[in-house]
Formats: sequence, structure tokens, C-alpha cells
Amino acid sequence: MEKETVRIEGFSDAVFAIAVTLLVLELHVPDKDSIRNGNDLVIFMKNQWPAFLAFILSFFSVFIMWVNHHKIFKQIYSRNSAIMFANGLILFLVSTVSYPTALLARYFNGEASAVVVAIYTGIFVLINFAYNLLWFLASRNKKLLRPGITDAAIKKIRNNYLYGFPIYLIALLFSFWIPLVSLIIILGLWFFWALSSGKIEMNVTEDRNRKIK
Amino acid sequence: MEKETVRIEGFSDAVFAIAVTLLVLELHVPDKDSIRNGNDLVIFMKNQWPAFLAFILSFFSVFIMWVNHHKIFKQIYSRNSAIMFANGLILFLVSTVSYPTALLARYFNGEASAVVVAIYTGIFVLINFAYNLLWFLASRNKKLLRPGITDAAIKKIRNNYLYGFPIYLIALLFSFWIPLVSLIIILGLWFFWALSSGKIEMNVTEDRNRKIK
Amino acid sequence: MEKETVRIEGFSDAVFAIAVTLLVLELHVPDKDSIRNGNDLVIFMKNQWPAFLAFILSFFSVFIMWVNHHKIFKQIYSRNSAIMFANGLILFLVSTVSYPTALLARYFNGEASAVVVAIYTGIFVLINFAYNLLWFLASRNKKLLRPGITDAAIKKIRNNYLYGFPIYLIALLFSFWIPLVSLIIILGLWFFWALSSGKIEMNVTEDRNRKIK
Amino acid sequence: MEKETVRIEGFSDAVFAIAVTLLVLELHVPDKDSIRNGNDLVIFMKNQWPAFLAFILSFFSVFIMWVNHHKIFKQIYSRNSAIMFANGLILFLVSTVSYPTALLARYFNGEASAVVVAIYTGIFVLINFAYNLLWFLASRNKKLLRPGITDAAIKKIRNNYLYGFPIYLIALLFSFWIPLVSLIIILGLWFFWALSSGKIEMNVTEDRNRKIK
Repeated sequence: MEKETVRIEGFSDAVFAIAVTLLVLELHVPDKDSIRNGNDLVIFMKNQWPAFLAFILSFFSVFIMWVNHHKIFKQIYSRNSAIMFANGLILFLVSTVSYPTALLARYFNGEASAVVVAIYTGIFVLINFAYNLLWFLASRNKKLLRPGITDAAIKKIRNNYLYGFPIYLIALLFSFWIPLVSLIIILGLWFFWALSSGKIEMNVTEDRNRKIK
Repeated sequence: MEKETVRIEGFSDAVFAIAVTLLVLELHVPDKDSIRNGNDLVIFMKNQWPAFLAFILSFFSVFIMWVNHHKIFKQIYSRNSAIMFANGLILFLVSTVSYPTALLARYFNGEASAVVVAIYTGIFVLINFAYNLLWFLASRNKKLLRPGITDAAIKKIRNNYLYGFPIYLIALLFSFWIPLVSLIIILGLWFFWALSSGKIEMNVTEDRNRKIK
Repeated sequence: MEKETVRIEGFSDAVFAIAVTLLVLELHVPDKDSIRNGNDLVIFMKNQWPAFLAFILSFFSVFIMWVNHHKIFKQIYSRNSAIMFANGLILFLVSTVSYPTALLARYFNGEASAVVVAIYTGIFVLINFAYNLLWFLASRNKKLLRPGITDAAIKKIRNNYLYGFPIYLIALLFSFWIPLVSLIIILGLWFFWALSSGKIEMNVTEDRNRKIK
Repeated sequence: MEKETVRIEGFSDAVFAIAVTLLVLELHVPDKDSIRNGNDLVIFMKNQWPAFLAFILSFFSVFIMWVNHHKIFKQIYSRNSAIMFANGLILFLVSTVSYPTALLARYFNGEASAVVVAIYTGIFVLINFAYNLLWFLASRNKKLLRPGITDAAIKKIRNNYLYGFPIYLIALLFSFWIPLVSLIIILGLWFFWALSSGKIEMNVTEDRNRKIK
């Protein structure tokens, strides 16, 4: 059975790659008038730490999203309109990440901190929802999936994203109370996904081995 | 029969992906001086609603154009200079979408509303024309198409784009009268294409099944 | 014999696609203060005609360069360091096109006209040189080329680019005298390449047919 | 044995291509008020020489990084989480190159020269570290590599990157003393890699030939 989703994956990869690479444009170089010597530049860059934090946080978040996208589409072999548009929603949200990142970079350190962290966390709630939707739409019809995929593997992938939803919501709530905690929760989830991504892959390989036997 | 259009599709995908991802650069982050607290930021973003509307409208329009490009090129197997340059015209127009989007974002809410909606709608009239041209040039010579494609499928694709032309022209006319109606017509056409794209694909699958029998 | 240049082509396609799509960022949207109504906007855009001209000229020039890159790499099957770096030089020059385009857009209409047209034309002289270099390095060793390519086809491709060199130099000279003539010569060369690209492809197909017999 | 790393390479190629093409955005076009004629423009561009130098230096450095990435991944056939994230670190650092390039462009010619050259060189120290890490993680487990790769080839690739580390550190130290020397060392290393890349490739071909016999 031929994989029908090659061009969708190529297009999605390009959107992820551009979204992740455009983030650097938010690291602003100081105006020539404000910098007289190396010391001024070092001080300027130190004061810009929220911009570097936001850049690193967003870069690796979009990168891990890409890893997850990759992992999901390894299981999807056919496509229909529903999958096309759930994927379109993911790409839309991924392409917007640079906007809340820029807000976080500029206003995390100040009075508007709670609002920008809420917007930043909110985008991740929506992206998590879109991933859940994609996998729901794809796994609802086993004809669309990789032949021989087990129900256990389908459920494992579903749970992996489903558990993220309440945690992102908690992060969203914290943003109005202690914004820094929200960012730490998001960071924690990335570690969880980075580590769990290996396990699911292994599981898939087991399935494949079982099929071969 | 080998498909000769792989590299054209890859290049086109990249242009679509970049065009769609660059749109976010038009969402401007407010200057630090104008924002004292979270409330100021919320008010700033509320006033920026035409920018968000323009961003969403353009993102999904380019995305649906990509879906349609994908669908047309699934039927094209060989290429000639005419197809190369009709495709070049599509890519040219797609790459310009961010400019009328930026105009719409900045001037929809004001005196210049009619002019920016006319320019925005005008681009879609031209893009629709370019898609009609591409399919006309490709389907004129059945040797360029997927072997076994039926005349009914060729006609169905043609009509799908042909019907769009007068509707976009109507949207263009409305822009001088009630600009909002133009945008609603464009939105309506996207729903039409999103829904009709499924049907044509099914049709293609039927053809394939028929051929196999 | 497997084609070794797939990843080089993919990378090159991406650079061409980004270079061509970034050009639109040079079409500036007017500041909100300077536009009171639709009429002001129309006048602003009319005065911006050199920006639109430069955008269209550069878009299709990079697009035709991509078509030619595509055509040359269809004949190259193996790679060596020399080809890698000749290709790197092409990509470097292609990625810079947006800079002379921006200069042309801003200063064609004024005192600095001759200088910006000379810079703009100069980039095309260099790009033409890089294409000649690539084909010289690739065709010098027939082991790198598509098996079965005829000497006539190799020569035809070489001449196609070689003839461009003196014409671009003439365009460069005219830029100091009548800048508009330089741009018309460049436009003329694109038509030449757009039309000649079809012929060489046909020739290649003939070779293939001959080989099959 | 099927190569599992195709989509990682595609994504990485896109990030490299975007990172390298975005560099041109740092070449600024002068404001219309400051340029009265062609002479003013020539003087402006002459004064901007550090921007052109930084652009050329960074373009070819990212290009050579891509060539090396290409070369390493030709030897990697399977992937695991460790490789995914070592590659993610490379892409992160590559995507940031435009920031120190912009600093170098603006401040190389002035009091902050030492600081910007140190930052610029520092990024290359980190990138060299990330390449060493990637190859360490990949080559530690021969199951991940191209079947039939010799220990000599593995060691040759390792040394190729390992030798770069102390040299980049020396370049970093020089940035505080004679900044220009740092840039010349970086330039020298690129020539070294450009030239050595050919040799390793040949070596690989020898391995392949040996395997065939």
C-alpha cells in the first residue's frame, strides 16, 4: 500500500521549518546611536534576556511539535478532507507562534506579563487541541492508518496528546497568577514529549516485528 | 509512466509554504512606549482586529489554493513550457498575497476600505484566472495528463474553477459598494472548494477503480 | 545509474523558492498617517511604480533562473566538490537579488538611477558567469553527466548561457547611458530563455529516444 | 536496508536554506532622504562594507555547514531520539547565525568590535560542538550507520570535526586581542573543510567499491 501523504508531509515540513527559522527575526539588534562600546552592547543584551528566553522556548517547542507531527504522519497512510483541514489548522497555529513569542519577548518583563504569558500559553492549548483533533479524525477510520497498526499503539498516541490538554489548561490558569510557573510547565511538557517520543517509536517497531513474524 | 512534475511540485510547495508563513510578519507587536500594562495590550490587540481577520482570511485562502494546486498536479504527469509558465504565474500571484493582506489589515477599518478590498479581491480574480489557464493548457493535450483520466473528470475540474470566475468578479464589484460583502463571498467560495475538493477526489478514485477492473 | 544530486536539487529549490518569495517584502505599505482615504492610497501606489516594476522583473528572472537550474541538473547525475561550490556561488548570488531589487525599487526614479541599474545588471552578469562556470565544470568530465547525453546537447546548453554573457555586459554598459535600455535588454533575454528552454528539452527527449532504439 | 532519515534531512535542508537566504535581509537599503544622487549611494555602500563582509562570511559558512550535514547524514541510516535532538541543536544554532551576523555587520567597525567578534566566533564554537556531539551519538552505535562503513571512515569524520574545536577556541581568544585574526581563522577553516570534504567522499566510495568486491 502506497503512502498518499508524502506531499502533505513535505508542505508541512516546509511550514514548520519556516516558522521555526523566522523566530530569530525577533532578536533585535540595537540602534547604532545607543551603543558606544562593547560594554554598552553587553548591557543591552543582558536586558534583552526575555527575548532570548522566548526565542529558545519557542524554537524547541516548534521543533518538538515537528517531531510529533512526523511521528503521527508515520502512522497515516491515506488522506481525506478532514485530515487535510485538521493539518491545515495545525499549520495555521504553528505559523502564528512567532507573534505570541514576540509579545513574550517584549512584555514578559513588566506589567503586561500575565496577559502575554496567557496568550503564549493559549496558543499551545489550541495547538494541543489541533493535534488531538488530527489524531481523532485519522484514527476513527483504521483504513487511513498504516496497515497492521495495533489498537494499543493507536490508544498510546491518543493518550500522549490527551494528557497534555489539562496540563496546558493549568499552565494557562497559572499565567494570571504566577506567569513564570506557566512557562516552567510548558518546558516540563516538552521534556515529557521528548522522552516519550522514543518509547512510542520502539512500540511501533515491536508492532512491525510482530507483523513480520 | 513516470511523473515528470515532481520537482515543479516541490518548488511550488515551497513557495506556497513560505507565502503562507510570511503572513504572520504583518501582525505587528506594539511599541514598548505605548503599552504600560496588560489592559493597554488587550485594547491594542482589539483595535488590531482587521489585521487578525486579514491574516486568517489570507492564510486559509493560500492553504486552499495549495490543496487545489496539489489536486490539479495529481492529474498532470508531463510538463511543457506552457505549463511551467502558467504555474509561474500562479506562484507569482500567490507570493504577492501578503501585500494586499497588509493593505487590508491596515486600511479595512477606515476611509480607504473600498480600495483595499478591491485590490484584495482583485488578486483573487487574477489567481482564479491563472488556475483556469493552467488547467486549460494542461487538459488541452491529454498526453500531459494522468493516463486513464476520464473526460468527465477533466470537465469537472475545469468547471470547478470556471464557476469561481464570475463569483470573484461579483465580489470585486461589491468591494466598491459594501466591502464586507466581498470578503463574505470570498469566505463562501473557500467553503465551497473545501467541500468540493473531497468529491472530486472520490471521483478520481472511482476512475482508478474502473481502470483496475 | 542512480542520480546523486537529489539533495542538492532540493536544497537549491528551497533557496530559489525563498529568494523569490522574500521579494514581496520590498513592497512597502504606506504609514497610516499619510493615507486619509482611498484616493491617497491610489496616488501612493502609483508613485510606487518602480517598486512594482522591480518586483515583477526580479520575480520572473529568479523563476527563469530556477527553470534553467532545473534543466542543467537534469543532465548532471554525479557530483564533486567543484560542482557543489559552483552551485553554492549560484545560490549565493540568487539569494542577494532582493538587495539590488530594493535599490532599484527605491532609486530607479531619480538621480541615482544609473548606479542602481548598473548594480542590478551587474548581479545578472555575475549570475550568468556562475551558470557558465557550473556547466563548464560539470561538462568537462562526462562521467558526471546523464549517461547517453550527446556532445551536441552539451554544446547547445553551453552556447545557451555563453551567448548571454556579452549581452548582459552590453546591458551593464547601457546602464550608465540610458538605464531603461538595460532593463529592456534583461527582459528580452528572459523571453529568449523562456522560449529556448522548450527547444533544448525536446532535444534531450530525442536523445533518450535514440538511446532506447 | 531502508534509510529512515529522509524526512529529517528534508526538514534540516529547509532550515539551512531559510537561514542562509534570510541573511540578505540584513543588507539595509539607505533611506530616501539621505541619498540625493548616485555618488551618495556609492559612498553609503562603501561605508557599509562590514555588512557585506559579514553577509558573505556567514552565507558560505552556513553553506559549508550544510555540505557537512549532508555528508554526515549520508552515513546515518537509522535514527533515535538522541540523534533527533543533537540535530535539533544544530538547527537551533544555525537558525541563530543571522543575529551575530547582524551584530558583526553593525559593530565590527567600531569600539564594540571585540565583543561582536567574540559572539560571532562563539556561535561557531557551539556549532562545532553540536556537530561533534551528533557524530559521537551516531557513531557510538554502528547499527545506526550505513551498513559496511569502515572504522577508518568513522574515525576520519570524527577527527575532521574534532580538530576544528581547538582552532575555533583559538579564534574566540583572538577576538579579544585582534578581532580581524579571528575572522581570518574562521575563513581558513572553511577552506580546510571545503577541500577535505572531497577527500572523505572519495574514501567512502573506496569503501563502497571494497564492499562490492
